[in-house]
Amino acid sequence: MSVTHPKGFAAAGLEIGLKKSGGKDLAIVHNLGPSMAAAVVFTSNRAKANPIIWSQQVIADGIVGAIVLNSGGANCYTGAAGFQVTHATAEAVGLKLGVSAGDVLVCSTGLIGDQLPLDTILAGVCAAELSATGGEDASLAIMTTDSRPKRAVHEGAGWSIGAMAKGAGMLAPGLATMLVVITTDADLPSDLLDAGLRRATRVTFDRLDSDGCMSTNDQVSLLASGASGISPDPEEFAAALTAVCADLAAQLQADAEGASHDIVIETVGAANEDDAVEVGRAVARNNLFKAAVFGNDPNWGRVLAAVGTTAAEFDPYAIDVSINGVMVCRSGEPGDSRELVDLSPRRVHLLIDLKSGAATATILTNDLTHDYVHENSAYSS
Amino acid sequence: MSVTHPKGFAAAGLEIGLKKSGGKDLAIVHNLGPSMAAAVVFTSNRAKANPIIWSQQVIADGIVGAIVLNSGGANCYTGAAGFQVTHATAEAVGLKLGVSAGDVLVCSTGLIGDQLPLDTILAGVCAAELSATGGEDASLAIMTTDSRPKRAVHEGAGWSIGAMAKGAGMLAPGLATMLVVITTDADLPSDLLDAGLRRATRVTFDRLDSDGCMSTNDQVSLLASGASGISPDPEEFAAALTAVCADLAAQLQADAEGASHDIVIETVGAANEDDAVEVGRAVARNNLFKAAVFGNDPNWGRVLAAVGTTAAEFDPYAIDVSINGVMVCRSGEPGDSRELVDLSPRRVHLLIDLKSGAATATILTNDLTHDYVHENSAYSS
Repeated sequence: MSVTHPKGFAAAGLEIGLKKSGGKDLAIVHNLGPSMAAAVVFTSNRAKANPIIWSQQVIADGIVGAIVLNSGGANCYTGAAGFQVTHATAEAVGLKLGVSAGDVLVCSTGLIGDQLPLDTILAGVCAAELSATGGEDASLAIMTTDSRPKRAVHEGAGWSIGAMAKGAGMLAPGLATMLVVITTDADLPSDLLDAGLRRATRVTFDRLDSDGCMSTNDQVSLLASGASGISPDPEEFAAALTAVCADLAAQLQADAEGASHDIVIETVGAANEDDAVEVGRAVARNNLFKAAVFGNDPNWGRVLAAVGTTAAEFDPYAIDVSINGVMVCRSGEPGDSRELVDLSPRRVHLLIDLKSGAATATILTNDLTHDYVHENSAYSS
Repeated sequence: MSVTHPKGFAAAGLEIGLKKSGGKDLAIVHNLGPSMAAAVVFTSNRAKANPIIWSQQVIADGIVGAIVLNSGGANCYTGAAGFQVTHATAEAVGLKLGVSAGDVLVCSTGLIGDQLPLDTILAGVCAAELSATGGEDASLAIMTTDSRPKRAVHEGAGWSIGAMAKGAGMLAPGLATMLVVITTDADLPSDLLDAGLRRATRVTFDRLDSDGCMSTNDQVSLLASGASGISPDPEEFAAALTAVCADLAAQLQADAEGASHDIVIETVGAANEDDAVEVGRAVARNNLFKAAVFGNDPNWGRVLAAVGTTAAEFDPYAIDVSINGVMVCRSGEPGDSRELVDLSPRRVHLLIDLKSGAATATILTNDLTHDYVHENSAYSS
């Protein structure tokens, strides 16, 4: 059910011919109210796609009536003509749903630098039939190289959260590259939604770093209908939101392009949280370590070489590194035999103890595989 | 001839059994004087191998009598026992050549975390027969996954420079991961050698970023015998040194593990040189762009997405991007057809014009290939 699980939402997902590979490629989610409170987190990439530029204006007042998403084209670096496509799409959705165009978020995903066919999109918007059971179709329509849709729900006491996500490549921080739509029938004002969403994404999507490549189109949108009539405790709501985002982040990691291992990098003993994140991120972006994991090779020297590139506080000769429970490096020297490490399971747990404090952070990444290279060497051709 | 090309040097390269793959694995270069002036640039990785820690002490006084290098083991994260191996190696070389151990640089390359067999190394040092024609053997003995040795010479007016290098993986900044030994019979004091070496490495090895992975063992050593009796103009010497380093950097790039393209990323129109380097580096480290080049796919959107992650001054809607002479992105919009770009040659020229100033920088990198993944998924196993 994804985004139509909470009360007060209708959605649709349909095929209009944008995606060369075929399949559904246009999704619309309508907030039926009574509230239209919303919050959005955007990519921190300075090269922003047209839908990002548009949506940043839309969310300024914290009010969103609908969101329209397309796969089959990123509408990024497409100039004034590209921005006009985004604007006209929002106008069409607004007209169809009786919502101001200025309250319609737009998201696009696909190849950068190609113009989207406006006529095709406008015809698609007209043809869309939104319903209270349309969430599943919507989650299919935002897929690009995803092999499966990503959905999550959470049940509160009389209120709920529903969500859908897409993302398989360009999965990196500042958001993990992706589109996410989260709906809730909880009745909360936009400032509390915004605080909760930032708190949730900071420790979930922001810590998914599959391939170190940050997209131009990332957007995580949270729409609240208030249809449950319940205003949950903001703390409880933020915790639920974080759980939903963590669920989706794990689904994105599990479906990352070409990956054969899901790597959980847990940094502990850090002087502060930033240090722990920096260390985890450096290891997550180290191609040599990632290729070693693909080869089932517990090459811990590459972990330490990556840690050494950071500014984090640590003593190179105090550090411990464990891979899947085997402490292969103890106090900066060879520990237990690397032969003891079993890297055959898909899930890999890398534990780095900096011995410099009490802060921790976990970064999610994937291995570097032949299939990753293959999929990404032939994307636009 | 490599390092024995200039007058005043003897060298040897021999097989002592350190490298599992076989082949020469121990090199010694002796400065016969009359001068023993030297300069060294080290990795900026904070996880420093034992030979780096040792050599940093040796160079403190600007005097070096000899350098000993081994492949077959990095001697990094090997604790106090590992440092003792480095120390004992320097002692043995010093004893053999009549040089103080404190004037013997040590370099190691290979797997991190394994102890080197000290007895094997000491026996090897005893067996080494240095000669004025030993430079070629020495250049072979420092190879790891290199497919061929890297050598360069420069002829000045009565003086010369000779050099050897190794490096194929972990090629990244702060030095491109490698060992380099440069010799000269020019008569220059160590402070001028140091200034010239830093000037040369800053624009050559420091701008080679094959795979974004910085080694724990990088070292570029410059030894001056003064045997020519000539003291060239420091400017002329620094320029010659830069040319030699650029030559070696290009050889390292051309032999990078698994690479099928040598990519020259030229950033122009930058507000300052740091911006130009940051932009080039961001693109050089973008796996999606690198995989696209492997697939002969001129996916310029990935270039712009990478530029967008930097803090460099640029207007996303003024930027131009050309690939092999075709301006595929003009003023932030689609330019000439990507179909016109021919990526079949090994050399790829990416030109990024930030339109924000007059500074430029060139970064050298490689594509991301199946062979890179393969070679690095099976290194230690």
